[in-house]
Amino acid sequence: MKIKIKELKEKVMKTLMQNFSKEEAERISEYLIWAEMCGIKTQGLLKLIGDNPLQKIKPLHKIKIEKDTKLSQVINAGAMPAPLVSQIATDNVIEKAKAHGFGIVAVHNIFSSNGAQGFYVERIAKENLIGIMCSRSPASAAAFDGIDPVFGTNPIGFGFPTNDEPIVFDMATSAMTWYGLVLAKARGEKIPENVAIDNNGKITTIPDEAMKGALLPFDKSYKGSGIAMIIEILAGPLASSAWVDNKTFKEEWGTLLIAIDPNLLTDVKKFKENCSDLVKKVKSSRKKEGINEIKIPGEDSRKSYQEALKTGFIEVDELILKGLGYI
Amino acid sequence: MKIKIKELKEKVMKTLMQNFSKEEAERISEYLIWAEMCGIKTQGLLKLIGDNPLQKIKPLHKIKIEKDTKLSQVINAGAMPAPLVSQIATDNVIEKAKAHGFGIVAVHNIFSSNGAQGFYVERIAKENLIGIMCSRSPASAAAFDGIDPVFGTNPIGFGFPTNDEPIVFDMATSAMTWYGLVLAKARGEKIPENVAIDNNGKITTIPDEAMKGALLPFDKSYKGSGIAMIIEILAGPLASSAWVDNKTFKEEWGTLLIAIDPNLLTDVKKFKENCSDLVKKVKSSRKKEGINEIKIPGEDSRKSYQEALKTGFIEVDELILKGLGYI
Repeated sequence: MKIKIKELKEKVMKTLMQNFSKEEAERISEYLIWAEMCGIKTQGLLKLIGDNPLQKIKPLHKIKIEKDTKLSQVINAGAMPAPLVSQIATDNVIEKAKAHGFGIVAVHNIFSSNGAQGFYVERIAKENLIGIMCSRSPASAAAFDGIDPVFGTNPIGFGFPTNDEPIVFDMATSAMTWYGLVLAKARGEKIPENVAIDNNGKITTIPDEAMKGALLPFDKSYKGSGIAMIIEILAGPLASSAWVDNKTFKEEWGTLLIAIDPNLLTDVKKFKENCSDLVKKVKSSRKKEGINEIKIPGEDSRKSYQEALKTGFIEVDELILKGLGYI
Repeated sequence: MKIKIKELKEKVMKTLMQNFSKEEAERISEYLIWAEMCGIKTQGLLKLIGDNPLQKIKPLHKIKIEKDTKLSQVINAGAMPAPLVSQIATDNVIEKAKAHGFGIVAVHNIFSSNGAQGFYVERIAKENLIGIMCSRSPASAAAFDGIDPVFGTNPIGFGFPTNDEPIVFDMATSAMTWYGLVLAKARGEKIPENVAIDNNGKITTIPDEAMKGALLPFDKSYKGSGIAMIIEILAGPLASSAWVDNKTFKEEWGTLLIAIDPNLLTDVKKFKENCSDLVKKVKSSRKKEGINEIKIPGEDSRKSYQEALKTGFIEVDELILKGLGYI
């Protein structure tokens, strides 16, 4: 149902302030409302419902900077919510790249997902930097030819500045997101064919069986599985986070953020101009029969966001609003 | 047919020294023989046959370092062969990352493909660094929903040090490589269904029609197309190379190399140990019915390489050996 953004934000703030300071709640809700405005339903308010909702997280300690060099930083999140810690990490990686041309920041000891990587890399791109972000989550996806969950849904995102809006690309390396399963389960719906297997390795369309089994690589091939493994390494061992098995590590999410100043290699003005030209050329290439428009990564989300901004309203799943006691 | 590696190397050196110095020919042949030993047939000696073979390249000038900072370097290749220039770029990115924790090197003005990214990133990984490499090539792949070629086959590679052999992942973002088309055409073979379209956007299995049409994204979805576009930006505008259209830029390949010292974030010894453990855990996860082994990226190539090293012989396509006048 349609809900006024302002009203929704107030309600979300109230929910979050049960457990977090006003300033913390503001940063977390900023992310959540953004995701809803973008229409990224599996990465928004859904994180406030279910068995382990974000607002019930009990942080172990305040965030700690465990390592800090000119180019790099390691943040121990102390189990603070990822949408908060990852915004701090984003600020810090931007600062490093602005000062030295390159920054790399790792976050570990987070006990929630930071949602859509697009939110963070877009911010980096808006600072005239190239943003790269990837995250690992508890094992829920099988390797190619395997049936046990060994990789997280392991999303990756890229943001590039242009002369217009940034190019923002963001994807899960599994054929479906974990919150996609959560949403389907909550709605009592089936999931598509050929995105998940049950515990015995048979294709399943039942969310619950998929949760006990494993998601498949997004392309069902060794390539998608390889990319998932790359992210498992970058946001796992490199980020001092966990890898592969959920028994030893339990709920260890991990995130790696990279920011690169295009001036390291070229002139940022020329780079932005050429990226805009690249977009224009891709969009004006010939289309498949029946296709009206070639979409650039992030275009649909941005359209949805701008529409919400204009009208002041967003469409939110009734189930979620009820679950949160908002209606 | 089987050929002695030593003999093949001598013949390749002779071919290359028609146009290049002994030292240059040695570096180029090192790559080519490696690819053949690894069984990466579309990225090896095949580059010496066809309309525009590597040994016939007429360099415009010696390579020029156009920009050089502590962390970065831009190389104008002067149309020197990519397998040579990319090895120099690899040496330089390693040097920068060893000195400062991070290095990024771009190569443009190359008029050939550097082949399998795995060769270069493995070298970086053997120096206890994380290697990332991507390259753009003349437009030959369509965007998702498009039918014109707008992206190159745009490969990406990653190398990670472990306590055993490095993890080396390398893939083209198109459903088939360009040299795959060249090879199929030379053999008079058809290509698989659903990897390429003709100039009118219809699926084709005829290599020649695919060459005039476009390859599809490796996963035939917006995700693969998005990754291809990311590489088009990183190895195109960021690397001072070309992007999207072949009319303006003609044959402008471009390459971006990144090396990251794990010590920026963690202890490299611990990192290597944990990467080895990650591999072990993925490999020991349960397998799909009928599957004997879960393969780690790069495993097949390494097995083939080691086998060749042991026997001293490799299997090379007769067509290629004849084309080169070796038999």
